[in-house]
Amino acid sequence: RTLHEVLFFPSEVACVEHIFTPTSAHPCFCSLPHGVETSFTRLLRRILSASSSLDLCIFAFSNMDLSRAVLTLHSRGVTIRVLTDKDYAAITGSQIGVLRKAGICVRCDMGSVYMHHKFAVVDGRLLVTGSLNWTLTAVQSNMENILVTEEPELVQPFIKEFHRLWVRNDPA
Amino acid sequence: RTLHEVLFFPSEVACVEHIFTPTSAHPCFCSLPHGVETSFTRLLRRILSASSSLDLCIFAFSNMDLSRAVLTLHSRGVTIRVLTDKDYAAITGSQIGVLRKAGICVRCDMGSVYMHHKFAVVDGRLLVTGSLNWTLTAVQSNMENILVTEEPELVQPFIKEFHRLWVRNDPA
Ligand SMILES: [Zn+2]
Ligand SMILES: [Zn+2]
Repeated sequence: RTLHEVLFFPSEVACVEHIFTPTSAHPCFCSLPHGVETSFTRLLRRILSASSSLDLCIFAFSNMDLSRAVLTLHSRGVTIRVLTDKDYAAITGSQIGVLRKAGICVRCDMGSVYMHHKFAVVDGRLLVTGSLNWTLTAVQSNMENILVTEEPELVQPFIKEFHRLWVRNDPA
Repeated sequence: RTLHEVLFFPSEVACVEHIFTPTSAHPCFCSLPHGVETSFTRLLRRILSASSSLDLCIFAFSNMDLSRAVLTLHSRGVTIRVLTDKDYAAITGSQIGVLRKAGICVRCDMGSVYMHHKFAVVDGRLLVTGSLNWTLTAVQSNMENILVTEEPELVQPFIKEFHRLWVRNDPA
């Protein structure tokens, strides 16, 4: 059975600490609601499910929780490649510099047009795509969608396009 | 067999006249390349395949060819509902006023946040979604994606979300 899931935003605002520290013996004491499954917790779980690779092609990346998810995967030894838009990468709050400093491989599309994609491929198998940029406004305010699928006819073209854009933006 | 298709942009620029007038006896004499199938002609064909209904939920709609496609469907008696973002609808070049004047049912999301979706549901059966706004820049310049699928597990949630947003933005 092929996995499919659709998530809509804005997401309810809820604590996501348990997603990063599921085995913690201490409860979280922050002021947000706890124990709530939301569109955003589901998105984080899909990203964190990566065990070998994460290919991310994203126009805007400023969301701290998604940045934490990518850094967590990196610390687990997951191979991460991030392709982003050069204009947005330079904006205050962009997480691209943080990822680079952590040693994650980032390439900026240097063309004069927008690299407007917002997709990720997890383990070369699971596609996560939609209208949602990886920003706080997109997650908590805007009306947005994310589509998750393992259907090879949908996943494979995105893998191929990622490869094409990745090679084309080789800074070397 | 379930239909799936992925289109990437920017699209090659080519004449789309034959898509609107397939039975014309006269060849087109415009200066664009002819007889070329592109991501954009495929997108237009998917939209024009509607025989009973088109539900469109789109942040930005200024593309003249896509506007012509929607007007063509309207003239064929296809039931069209357009939900759009109030801020973008007021921008110069927006096709929303043109659609309204033609008698197409349009609702603007009046919330203070962005209605950032870019999806269409054709005949309650085919989902067309992605990063692509219905603008000329998105089609001809940006790096963008469109995903087309008939998979019910993906289509049904979008139908449900369209209904929810449509009812919520009833001006009456
Ligand atoms: Zn907490
Ligand atoms: Zn022509």
